[in-house]
Amino acid sequence: MKVVALAGGVGAGKFLRGLVRAVPPTDVTAVVNTADDMTLHGLRICPDLDSVTYWLAGLADRDRGWGRAGESFRALEEVRGLGGPAWFGLGDLDLGAHLVRTGWLGEGASLSEVTARLTAALGVGVRILPMSDEPVATVIDSMDDDGSGRTDPFQVYWVKRGARDEVKGVRFEGIARARPAPGVLEAIEAADAIVVCPSNPVVSVAPILAVSGVRDAVAARRERAAGVSPIVGGAPVAGMADRLMPAVGLEVSALGAASAYRGLLHGWVVDERDADLAPRIENVLGMRVAVTDTIMTDDAVAERVATAALELATG
Amino acid sequence: MKVVALAGGVGAGKFLRGLVRAVPPTDVTAVVNTADDMTLHGLRICPDLDSVTYWLAGLADRDRGWGRAGESFRALEEVRGLGGPAWFGLGDLDLGAHLVRTGWLGEGASLSEVTARLTAALGVGVRILPMSDEPVATVIDSMDDDGSGRTDPFQVYWVKRGARDEVKGVRFEGIARARPAPGVLEAIEAADAIVVCPSNPVVSVAPILAVSGVRDAVAARRERAAGVSPIVGGAPVAGMADRLMPAVGLEVSALGAASAYRGLLHGWVVDERDADLAPRIENVLGMRVAVTDTIMTDDAVAERVATAALELATG
Repeated sequence: MKVVALAGGVGAGKFLRGLVRAVPPTDVTAVVNTADDMTLHGLRICPDLDSVTYWLAGLADRDRGWGRAGESFRALEEVRGLGGPAWFGLGDLDLGAHLVRTGWLGEGASLSEVTARLTAALGVGVRILPMSDEPVATVIDSMDDDGSGRTDPFQVYWVKRGARDEVKGVRFEGIARARPAPGVLEAIEAADAIVVCPSNPVVSVAPILAVSGVRDAVAARRERAAGVSPIVGGAPVAGMADRLMPAVGLEVSALGAASAYRGLLHGWVVDERDADLAPRIENVLGMRVAVTDTIMTDDAVAERVATAALELATG
Repeated sequence: MKVVALAGGVGAGKFLRGLVRAVPPTDVTAVVNTADDMTLHGLRICPDLDSVTYWLAGLADRDRGWGRAGESFRALEEVRGLGGPAWFGLGDLDLGAHLVRTGWLGEGASLSEVTARLTAALGVGVRILPMSDEPVATVIDSMDDDGSGRTDPFQVYWVKRGARDEVKGVRFEGIARARPAPGVLEAIEAADAIVVCPSNPVVSVAPILAVSGVRDAVAARRERAAGVSPIVGGAPVAGMADRLMPAVGLEVSALGAASAYRGLLHGWVVDERDADLAPRIENVLGMRVAVTDTIMTDDAVAERVATAALELATG
């Protein structure tokens, strides 16, 4: 069974570890958000691509959630001591990927090619595709505590300022020119199942769907498409999606998250805590709902979540 | 006493630690070679600027000679594992400086400004100036073991290929457009003493002198200028200068090294092992010679070497 997963970062990584227990990794294509990529210190940093890669390679730090297990931060502490920007948690191991990626991009390789080389080197069987080889940059328009307007690159809003500003708008700069990376549309068209990972609908999945042709390709396969709610009990399982969803008119609930995919998905997996929302999701959005434990504390739970999503997508 | 030191990397760093025991650090301006700088993994790397900075800040690894004491190489091992270029010894601590420098350069700061910020952050009292804010790149034309011609950036020749190719020529690309960094000519003109550090005459000091106006400025102050031989007993104290000097017609000796500065220096410090060369240096090159122990195993030795050079320069 060929499966395409639309993926953000950590939540997607955990989910994909379960998915590759349910189907062979080589049957899975992960299409990953690149709109929160950034260039820092001259290095090209792709947080979601790296999160998904590290989780699938077994290198992720499950306790901290982000980054590499056994990570150290010696270079970052030097940056701090030298007066450079040290708000982004670049680990020494993580730097290896950024260095290699930046070097290869500088030599003219596409992000797809770089990603293929990195995942091959780490023995990842899943095909990981960036949503696009062209740069797209999420920009957050917001208002700070003093009532002043701000416009920040996503990682500045998210990491440096801790998502504390009141979000007024979310834009994906460059999205109009971004073409799907090679293989993205073909994978969606050929998939037996399309799954939306439990990722932030506003800044992780929305940019993927906004790449030219992707939304239509998914909509055309709606009967084969399902998603997993990143919102459990009215709050994000991880991250700060609750700060972003209201700004785009989404209720912070499993129903609100599902409504982001109206007309795109056939099924929606919610947590047991949200079982009471199932009828509304089914009635209002016309999605079939599966209820299960979605807090992926280990790969076995993630496998059950993935299986539920696959059953909805193919049922 | 205002002192200007023309400096390469490690030998210069050791020497400067002695110099700042002989005169106040704030009286010293080090004009540092940047022709073996390179961009690797997208990062701007300035080996000589960093060596001099690390030595003066007390952060250098005296045993290994290059890089930071207490260094680790976790990022580099990741780069190797991911299939990236791992031939250049980028340490995790060292990366901090490269990251900060690359970021600030990207924001539009000049290399002089970046260097001033880095040295201030590390509490270095010596004013460290790059020879130029414009990039200059040493290129080595050579012949490999198979008799094939090669053209390599300096660090590729030096580090990646271990200086094993037969050097046919040395070029400094961009040198014609390179202007002296702000303050370089003024410092030379105002100096009470100009000292050439025990650095490679072919690839460390020659590029500095080749920057527009620098050679003439030093020549105009010849009576105040002295140098320290980087060659002792017919071999470099460190590095592989013996592989480069013959290619430009310099004998690998304290005399040969001195001859690189014919007409520029008033005095030359040689090691006790080379005392027999003193008469020829004095007769052939017209330099006054001081003989002392120049193997700078500690700062006290370096101070005696610096004092000898200052006495020649000002005597």
